[in-house]
Amino acid sequence: MTSPIRIAIAGHGNLGRGVEAALTRNADMQLVGIYTRRPPAQLQPLAAGTPVHGMDALAGHADRIDVLILCGGSKEDLPQQGPALAARFNTVDSFDTHAQIPAYFAAVDAAAAPNRRTALISAGWDPGMFSINRVLGEALLPEGATYTFWGKGLSQGHSDAIRRVPGVAGGVQYTVPVPTAVEQVRSGTRPTLTTRQKHTRECFVVLAEGADADTVRRAIVSMPHYFDEYDTTVTFISADELRRDHGAMPHGGFVIRSGSTSAGSGQVIEYGLKLDSNPEFTASVLVAYARAVHRLHQQGRFGAFTVFDVAPGLLSPKSAAELRAESL
Amino acid sequence: MTSPIRIAIAGHGNLGRGVEAALTRNADMQLVGIYTRRPPAQLQPLAAGTPVHGMDALAGHADRIDVLILCGGSKEDLPQQGPALAARFNTVDSFDTHAQIPAYFAAVDAAAAPNRRTALISAGWDPGMFSINRVLGEALLPEGATYTFWGKGLSQGHSDAIRRVPGVAGGVQYTVPVPTAVEQVRSGTRPTLTTRQKHTRECFVVLAEGADADTVRRAIVSMPHYFDEYDTTVTFISADELRRDHGAMPHGGFVIRSGSTSAGSGQVIEYGLKLDSNPEFTASVLVAYARAVHRLHQQGRFGAFTVFDVAPGLLSPKSAAELRAESL
Repeated sequence: MTSPIRIAIAGHGNLGRGVEAALTRNADMQLVGIYTRRPPAQLQPLAAGTPVHGMDALAGHADRIDVLILCGGSKEDLPQQGPALAARFNTVDSFDTHAQIPAYFAAVDAAAAPNRRTALISAGWDPGMFSINRVLGEALLPEGATYTFWGKGLSQGHSDAIRRVPGVAGGVQYTVPVPTAVEQVRSGTRPTLTTRQKHTRECFVVLAEGADADTVRRAIVSMPHYFDEYDTTVTFISADELRRDHGAMPHGGFVIRSGSTSAGSGQVIEYGLKLDSNPEFTASVLVAYARAVHRLHQQGRFGAFTVFDVAPGLLSPKSAAELRAESL
Repeated sequence: MTSPIRIAIAGHGNLGRGVEAALTRNADMQLVGIYTRRPPAQLQPLAAGTPVHGMDALAGHADRIDVLILCGGSKEDLPQQGPALAARFNTVDSFDTHAQIPAYFAAVDAAAAPNRRTALISAGWDPGMFSINRVLGEALLPEGATYTFWGKGLSQGHSDAIRRVPGVAGGVQYTVPVPTAVEQVRSGTRPTLTTRQKHTRECFVVLAEGADADTVRRAIVSMPHYFDEYDTTVTFISADELRRDHGAMPHGGFVIRSGSTSAGSGQVIEYGLKLDSNPEFTASVLVAYARAVHRLHQQGRFGAFTVFDVAPGLLSPKSAAELRAESL
């Protein structure tokens, strides 16, 4: 057995904690440090012995880390952190602002390539595993249509949007695929579906003291971009119910490619996820891609990469010969 | 637009005809010839202008063909053809005798590598897309269990086995997943399932004149390896019914990885196929991998490869930049 891949975590929110948990399930990797913006002493690592450092200690630790997993957010953290750290480390991140991916890729590539570093951006499940399945579905069935459904699952962005509405003391939002739409797509009919026909949005909201329920409900369901194009339900609950019933972060969904290979032959490919914990699954994807990044770097492949550039075998701890014998 | 990839087909059974159909749906590829062991004049290509040659004409045509898609069978054809042709062409095949894949890989690699040719073996859906999903599932959820279900679908091997039984004039066999087993696995419980608990086998049989139904039925259900470990039903039908109701080649199935990322968090990944035509879908996979083989060859990557070695983006006609902008 070769020595384990030395992994470090930058950022210790839900995603960073998920990476810690995932690393305990991958014997060929070793967590060598957690880097945080908070005072390091405040942070409780999963394993008592894990070193915790301030983020600025990273600068001096480049020779201790094979791959740095960036667990910051796509809005505030990664646009700066991603390129800055890819100049000095091999990195993996989950940058998920779809529209800005090309610009982010270019910035990370410009930082990593001249410094002979390998950086994989936008890993996770969407972008990530769902993206792979969109590309494969289209390549295998060029004549056809692709459908992505999300949920049932907790949407962080939409929950945040609810919580910004005046009169809301707390709340969560679940994205729910419309069952009849899913069945239509699965049957191979290739319907044209509007935004409203594909998903509904279910909000569970705690009213602030003195707030008017109807005013809050109308503010939510009419919110541009977030809710106005959907059928949205708002259910008012107590703070206790919110804590008790809505603390988990389930998610999932499916990518369906429905196509034809000849006049009479319909073919349907479906990739689906049913996740009890969205951040833990995303973290597990990041960890598998950290293994791939380490190997790409060892092969002398530098610069920015996406999941489209990584052969499936590179994600596995097994050798190519083992995979051929056991899994092909 | 660069000039199209020049594709040729070796072997013109169901799979070869599927490749012809698939090529009409991929604008970046061009069918430059079909090679057959039958007298070429007997063969009806899908497009009237497609050149048809005897198999021995291949020897002189190496400079006209970018990728040769081998459409022969795994039992009789590919063990000889695969290595022999990989010494002179870039090839793709669907070799599917799972136990012999390592030896076949070695033979093809030994032929292709010194001749600077690129050969992708064992493409299709199982081996192929299902294999990729087994490897990814295990890499993303190291703590868990993998389940492969096949069907409902027509099994060529089992249909052949039925037809060899004395007293059988014709017949087909469908492999059917047991619904309760599938539901158990989808629910995340990770059951241990015997062969009998996972699939049933449904046979539709035409009796030869004078044959005894009960004798035939017993010969089928007790056949070692093929049927004895399964609950098998045998339904006797007329030759007309066989022709009318059982002429299609549907298939499919699913690969499910059920795992945990922490004590309380179950995660389920499912990849499923619902295919009206098994050979046409397999052919579509071969054609997409032909594109990848052409690119690998252009990159100077020679020798034998499997689906585990091919990055998803290489299967798509789109550029890496297009994929990042449109599909990530």
